Amino acid sequence: MNVYFHKPAISQPIVVKMLEAACACAQDLGTSVNVAIVDDGGNLKGFIRMDDAPLLSGEIAQNKAYSASAFGMPTSQWYPMLEKNPALLHGIVHTNRLTIFAGGLPILIEGRVAGGIGVSGGTGEQDELCAKAGLAELETYLRS
Amino acid sequence: MNVYFHKPAISQPIVVKMLEAACACAQDLGTSVNVAIVDDGGNLKGFIRMDDAPLLSGEIAQNKAYSASAFGMPTSQWYPMLEKNPALLHGIVHTNRLTIFAGGLPILIEGRVAGGIGVSGGTGEQDELCAKAGLAELETYLRS
Amino acid sequence: MNVYFHKPAISQPIVVKMLEAACACAQDLGTSVNVAIVDDGGNLKGFIRMDDAPLLSGEIAQNKAYSASAFGMPTSQWYPMLEKNPALLHGIVHTNRLTIFAGGLPILIEGRVAGGIGVSGGTGEQDELCAKAGLAELETYLRS
Amino acid sequence: MNVYFHKPAISQPIVVKMLEAACACAQDLGTSVNVAIVDDGGNLKGFIRMDDAPLLSGEIAQNKAYSASAFGMPTSQWYPMLEKNPALLHGIVHTNRLTIFAGGLPILIEGRVAGGIGVSGGTGEQDELCAKAGLAELETYLRS
Repeated sequence: MNVYFHKPAISQPIVVKMLEAACACAQDLGTSVNVAIVDDGGNLKGFIRMDDAPLLSGEIAQNKAYSASAFGMPTSQWYPMLEKNPALLHGIVHTNRLTIFAGGLPILIEGRVAGGIGVSGGTGEQDELCAKAGLAELETYLRS
Repeated sequence: MNVYFHKPAISQPIVVKMLEAACACAQDLGTSVNVAIVDDGGNLKGFIRMDDAPLLSGEIAQNKAYSASAFGMPTSQWYPMLEKNPALLHGIVHTNRLTIFAGGLPILIEGRVAGGIGVSGGTGEQDELCAKAGLAELETYLRS
Repeated sequence: MNVYFHKPAISQPIVVKMLEAACACAQDLGTSVNVAIVDDGGNLKGFIRMDDAPLLSGEIAQNKAYSASAFGMPTSQWYPMLEKNPALLHGIVHTNRLTIFAGGLPILIEGRVAGGIGVSGGTGEQDELCAKAGLAELETYLRS
Repeated sequence: MNVYFHKPAISQPIVVKMLEAACACAQDLGTSVNVAIVDDGGNLKGFIRMDDAPLLSGEIAQNKAYSASAFGMPTSQWYPMLEKNPALLHGIVHTNRLTIFAGGLPILIEGRVAGGIGVSGGTGEQDELCAKAGLAELETYLRS
């Protein structure tokens, strides 16, 4: 019987690098976003709101990061799954903090969910690109 | 005139057995779930989150157990009832904690609702199978 | 620069054993309690309410477990620290879920906070004894 | 009659520098903290939780930053003011998010409140030192 096991957790300096990479991507795309990173427990680890990013999106970015971490799945994958299942579509959207549109991605390390990154402020496509830029930054460090 | 009456209530050791039976079923199905059991007052009596179960589903499992107990009906029976009644469909889903998709089952003893069991983390089908495994465990003890 | 690090996490079967050990201790003391265990992210991992335990204490047990995990300190150590600091005493008690009385203990593995156990329903002394019984059960498995 | 006016607002790159300066100060002091920066609207602009910082303090850091910005005063100055006024002491602490102990400082630019920085995780003294380190970083850029 396993008494305990180990969970990977991203370190603080990498969290800052990921936030900055996501913001740089938004700047390249000509938009302004909020970026949030949570750990595997869904708790906020880092956050940045760009200077002209919509205020409303601050909470959405945090909820996207939470959703991606707490379910281990990109937030963009929820709707295609829900549209075939009306009970779930009408029901599960009431779950606290669950976000079912693009812009949240799980952070995977060693095959385990180590957290989530959520971006909000641009279009769904832009938000997801920025979140991917954050993950790409992590990948660079993981490979080095 | 009845001055008072008795309500059946599941005892703590059986609650633990039911939680473990539901988890064992999830393991057999190759998934990881959260399992919650509430009493007839809708209050949490027991809970387990399996090691790789999605965090998001912890609250959903509790809400399924609550819904099943608080309405005395499997949560899977809500949607077929709601889809014919759009006012209800758009309205009642805002009821606090009401869950309208599979995975919550009432616990019945002597024809009365003694609580509810809710499972979340797998597909709706898997969740309901795990909840049934929990009830089956109770049945074993009721018959013995 | 550390890219990531590892956090210890208690496995589900041990969580059940710890819950049962805490309940057994309460039974020995002639009281009935609620026992909650959270992981290092403060999220509920396991919970049991004994048959005659006060309902009100269900939430308190969860908050004690949360507080112990989220600050890495027994909840009983808050008041001695606060009574010398009136600003903190009047202020910090408003922190969400923070519990400043006995019954919550951090779960430490490899020198890191891996979660918390919270017990509520008896006196502060009884609650803390039950929480210690839960930790003692974990110790047995860690040593074996 | 002034039709409109300008409010100073800290830019995103400086927010990151301030967060990092506060974290570096915590490291020098041998502690781990959460650091939050809000703008003049009290809305989160940036946040970092250090790797071993207590989870519980994440919300407190945000509330300190909010309080400092929303009242334009260091949070440490509340209690000396409240202790002479028991009605206020027992009443105002129930104000949402108001924090009345050290660790939150207003960010002043051109004599106006441009936001707040809040630090939590160490002692009150340590938290305030870290918040001051964040402000000192801003000063460096303002002077250059």
